[in-house]
Amino acid sequence: MNEVTRLLKTHRSIRKFTEQPVSDEMIHEIITCGQAAATSSNIQAVSVIRIRNPATRKQLAALSGDQGYVTRAGAFLVFCADLARPRFACEMQGGDFAQGMTEQFLIATVDVALAAQNCVVAAESLGLGICYIGGIRNHPQAVADLLRLPEDVYPVFGLCLGFPAQNPQTKPRLPLSVVFQEEYYPAHQDQQAIEAYDQQMRNYYQTRTGGNKNSSWSQEICSLIGKESRPHMRGFLARRGFSMR
Amino acid sequence: MNEVTRLLKTHRSIRKFTEQPVSDEMIHEIITCGQAAATSSNIQAVSVIRIRNPATRKQLAALSGDQGYVTRAGAFLVFCADLARPRFACEMQGGDFAQGMTEQFLIATVDVALAAQNCVVAAESLGLGICYIGGIRNHPQAVADLLRLPEDVYPVFGLCLGFPAQNPQTKPRLPLSVVFQEEYYPAHQDQQAIEAYDQQMRNYYQTRTGGNKNSSWSQEICSLIGKESRPHMRGFLARRGFSMR
Repeated sequence: MNEVTRLLKTHRSIRKFTEQPVSDEMIHEIITCGQAAATSSNIQAVSVIRIRNPATRKQLAALSGDQGYVTRAGAFLVFCADLARPRFACEMQGGDFAQGMTEQFLIATVDVALAAQNCVVAAESLGLGICYIGGIRNHPQAVADLLRLPEDVYPVFGLCLGFPAQNPQTKPRLPLSVVFQEEYYPAHQDQQAIEAYDQQMRNYYQTRTGGNKNSSWSQEICSLIGKESRPHMRGFLARRGFSMR
Repeated sequence: MNEVTRLLKTHRSIRKFTEQPVSDEMIHEIITCGQAAATSSNIQAVSVIRIRNPATRKQLAALSGDQGYVTRAGAFLVFCADLARPRFACEMQGGDFAQGMTEQFLIATVDVALAAQNCVVAAESLGLGICYIGGIRNHPQAVADLLRLPEDVYPVFGLCLGFPAQNPQTKPRLPLSVVFQEEYYPAHQDQQAIEAYDQQMRNYYQTRTGGNKNSSWSQEICSLIGKESRPHMRGFLARRGFSMR
């Protein structure tokens, strides 16, 4: 273990922030760290938009499921998968962009996530707390309109950053033996390990909510994937140019 | 700038490794750091498989476009987007998995990339070099067969890790002003900045190849996205259970 791995292992989402502003210098340093992440064939299919306007922040918070910290965080960024810039570069060369490939959707989405995670690590190393906002995909068309995103660009997630005004514990994860394998994917899921984790998460929820939340990991996951999640995403992406062919 | 941001900003892919093995302890520490990354609603849709078997490594190298470092790296990991485990948890609760949602494909893919980038930062902090291998998507069905991946699991990318036997320079990135915006996506692409970057990349390629590669960023991108990329991905994913509805 070193200072970096200690930092990585103590990550937890922060949803309460102090009034202390996040300087431009800090944000630029964070984005520069994001850009340094690996990118597929150097395509750099990432654009980051910082929203300062309080009215826009309020709209984004409402569109993301009334997450007030979207308004109150020291800084709010939207990470976009951006094939419009590569397309422009291609057309500068007289080429025709092969739009709508599933592989390109995948590449752009992975590029965004790698860059964002570097930003997060940088931010946390600078004393900031963060919270990813997947909720911007609740109403992605409205978000795209607000940010004037062109064709071939889609908002993947938001990111709240700010100086923490809370100090929550880290959330337990599945045991290493469940997520990490040698040579092959296991022939059977390890039900015993999952049940032990369920109990651990039940205790975690009980402690964190003062006894109000009585649920396990499996129960939470079931309510998440036991129903259609954001069924508008397919059509939204297709209209953006990500038609998944 | 601090030690962490310095580490992040000096990333470059490593493709030549010393013979020094990567210990189990190190790999476990790296994966634990990966697990600590944010995950959408704690779904943890990630499985990592370490391949040691030299014959399997050789096959994977061949399937990834004859990238010899897949065979020679101190360790080789395959990062999989895994909805089979959440599905199992859901079924443990008597629920029915709503298979094939585009949103769930997106969530699992982002989860994998966030975890992997944490692994990369951890690995580099421990003195290792890394190289992402998107080439495992050249023949993803063969990779899935080799690793015995079940339905609802797909291999996103591989990762070579090892002690570096080379010290390449970092690759220049697009200027911050091109990838980072305030309030809105810009109405026009910044052609001037892209042309300046093209020139910078041309110099970089010339220097790195001793004058053999005369190309720019736009030219490279055009040859990448000016043709259909991995057109098999759509069908492959659908057969895995990721039907993108």
